[in-house]
Amino acid sequence: MQAAPKIAPFMPPRRILMGPGPSDVYPEVLLAQSRPTVGHLDPLFVAMMDELKALLQYAFQTQNEVTLAVSAPGSAGMETCFVNLVEPGEKVVVCRNGVFGERMRQNVERCGGVAVVVDFPWGAPVDPQVVEGVLKQHPDASYLAFVHAETSTGALSDAKTLCALAREHNCLSIVDAVTSLGGVELRVDEWGIDAIYSGSQKCLSCVPGLSPVSFSPRAVEKLKSRKTPVQSWFLDQTLVMGYWGGSGKRAYHHTAPVNALYALHESLRLLAEEGLENAWARHQHMHQLLKAGLEKLGLGFVVDEAYRLPQLNAVYIPEGVDDAAVRSQLLKGYNLEIGAGLGDLAGKAWRIGLMGYGARAENVAICLKALEEVLQ
Amino acid sequence: MQAAPKIAPFMPPRRILMGPGPSDVYPEVLLAQSRPTVGHLDPLFVAMMDELKALLQYAFQTQNEVTLAVSAPGSAGMETCFVNLVEPGEKVVVCRNGVFGERMRQNVERCGGVAVVVDFPWGAPVDPQVVEGVLKQHPDASYLAFVHAETSTGALSDAKTLCALAREHNCLSIVDAVTSLGGVELRVDEWGIDAIYSGSQKCLSCVPGLSPVSFSPRAVEKLKSRKTPVQSWFLDQTLVMGYWGGSGKRAYHHTAPVNALYALHESLRLLAEEGLENAWARHQHMHQLLKAGLEKLGLGFVVDEAYRLPQLNAVYIPEGVDDAAVRSQLLKGYNLEIGAGLGDLAGKAWRIGLMGYGARAENVAICLKALEEVLQ
Repeated sequence: MQAAPKIAPFMPPRRILMGPGPSDVYPEVLLAQSRPTVGHLDPLFVAMMDELKALLQYAFQTQNEVTLAVSAPGSAGMETCFVNLVEPGEKVVVCRNGVFGERMRQNVERCGGVAVVVDFPWGAPVDPQVVEGVLKQHPDASYLAFVHAETSTGALSDAKTLCALAREHNCLSIVDAVTSLGGVELRVDEWGIDAIYSGSQKCLSCVPGLSPVSFSPRAVEKLKSRKTPVQSWFLDQTLVMGYWGGSGKRAYHHTAPVNALYALHESLRLLAEEGLENAWARHQHMHQLLKAGLEKLGLGFVVDEAYRLPQLNAVYIPEGVDDAAVRSQLLKGYNLEIGAGLGDLAGKAWRIGLMGYGARAENVAICLKALEEVLQ
Repeated sequence: MQAAPKIAPFMPPRRILMGPGPSDVYPEVLLAQSRPTVGHLDPLFVAMMDELKALLQYAFQTQNEVTLAVSAPGSAGMETCFVNLVEPGEKVVVCRNGVFGERMRQNVERCGGVAVVVDFPWGAPVDPQVVEGVLKQHPDASYLAFVHAETSTGALSDAKTLCALAREHNCLSIVDAVTSLGGVELRVDEWGIDAIYSGSQKCLSCVPGLSPVSFSPRAVEKLKSRKTPVQSWFLDQTLVMGYWGGSGKRAYHHTAPVNALYALHESLRLLAEEGLENAWARHQHMHQLLKAGLEKLGLGFVVDEAYRLPQLNAVYIPEGVDDAAVRSQLLKGYNLEIGAGLGDLAGKAWRIGLMGYGARAENVAICLKALEEVLQ
């Protein structure tokens, strides 16, 4: 026998999470998650799932019947959208203005789709006029895919206009809302979004590991009329819908992550209690406080003010400052986590998150004071 | 605006989980999971992941470098094994003696592989002699896939002999250990298993949502020499290894389910504290107690004694007894969950789990007394 390792219980420190996610989790959510596990087909759990669906529909502002949480993180939510919709040979116009647009391209190609990549500078939003030109050049495109809130740069794109363009050009829209859901205005039905995915660990302030998704009736129709099977068994929504589907009997597909779903239920419940519009306004208000302070410290934003996400503040690292050393000092000295730059911005920018429960005046104050002291 | 639904916090009942999983979760695990969330690249979290890997290696009895937890349930673990190894056109001998063998076949075909299905009766184990014949008939097969502990019937197959056969015939073995890990003898290195997956919610008594997996050096070699890209971005182990990989810098792939990993760390820690062999013996002992009681009640087992899993007891529903009514009475009257039959056994059998923390004398006693009263 291989010997048993002797390991003590893990006691995590109490961090203040102001990076790109996971964000500070609501204490109520941690509590909800620790309640006793029940069976995933228990009638009381199934009733909880119905509530969860209603809460997700509210957060997304949609009546979409197929609205649920994928039992895996946001990257799996992204894959769920692409793998269920895109069939081999289908053309997808992919807007790329950061890490996650590039990941969309990879997903399209792994499904056998043809990606038409439209590039925008890092830190810039997706430009609808450019996209319109590309859609005109590719009348055979079936999808338009873009990131609503690019977590790698902090740029917000105009999802409403882009989705309207998709419809005009007979495309279904696939939208990454991992960082936007709950933090900025997002209206799935009004804007005509066809497939959307998010993450539990950003502005919902739930524990990481789940991905809310929603499919419009047009997307469901496409899914149901596929000519080829969905390549992923686990993510195949025609199977998953049997479990999350309408009222009545639920068919076993996979064992739901019961306790994580308790957590998501609670975080969405808190969002509904606050009200979506209030949450959006709170994120904006906290962003203004943080912005004023960061500017006083001489830190410049990566993204133009007009397209700046309140919940993800990418600022340039001042000349001569040691990126890793500062982040380490913040973590060790203040239990404060801010995010490193990603991709093109690695080593050049920090990403300061103000997401969900983390978008509070006390967090802004701690962050500004700690940065002031460390940068002195 | 779509109005916010008014929903109260979800307060789950305290169930006694004696179905096919999720099983009763250790109270320590629920506690561990509720500890404060930290960043997934936090140095303290990364150190915790190193411990988790050592604990997984112990549970699997392996030195495999690629041993980790997939950030999704067991079904995704299954898909991880197939999608990373099987390339289009490759032949996989799939043994089918229940629901999960059939799911393996579907996974093979969705990867573009060619499944050679070998059928065995429901409730019977996989017969190595028959498998040997099939391997001889298919010298071009690249993989042998089978379920170690079939959760739909409660049959245990001889993984040691089957994996030796795979090696003899130049095949890599892919083993489903969802229900076996921690409950019955399992030795990955000694038996020469090449790819194995399990679930957190069975004999590990952790919350559902994670899937421990392990790949032998031979399997990793195959993975690295693939001619085609892995079709799933999320499950692509060449990317995931960058995060879970050796010591030093960890590359961001997806946001790890931080709190669920706390839970898995704690459940594996408790298993290591008890000792694997003690845990196996405890499952066997509790099974004997349950078996004696069930036989007194006149309930017959689906599986022959020689191949019976201690942790999953499938018994025939007596003639004239209303399946759903009994399970509902147990749930409502005793907060006791036992499992319904699945697939061919739906409506014909119950599945009584004795898994992990659930394999205790008090659970056996409650189950026997409640069944006695309800069946009177």
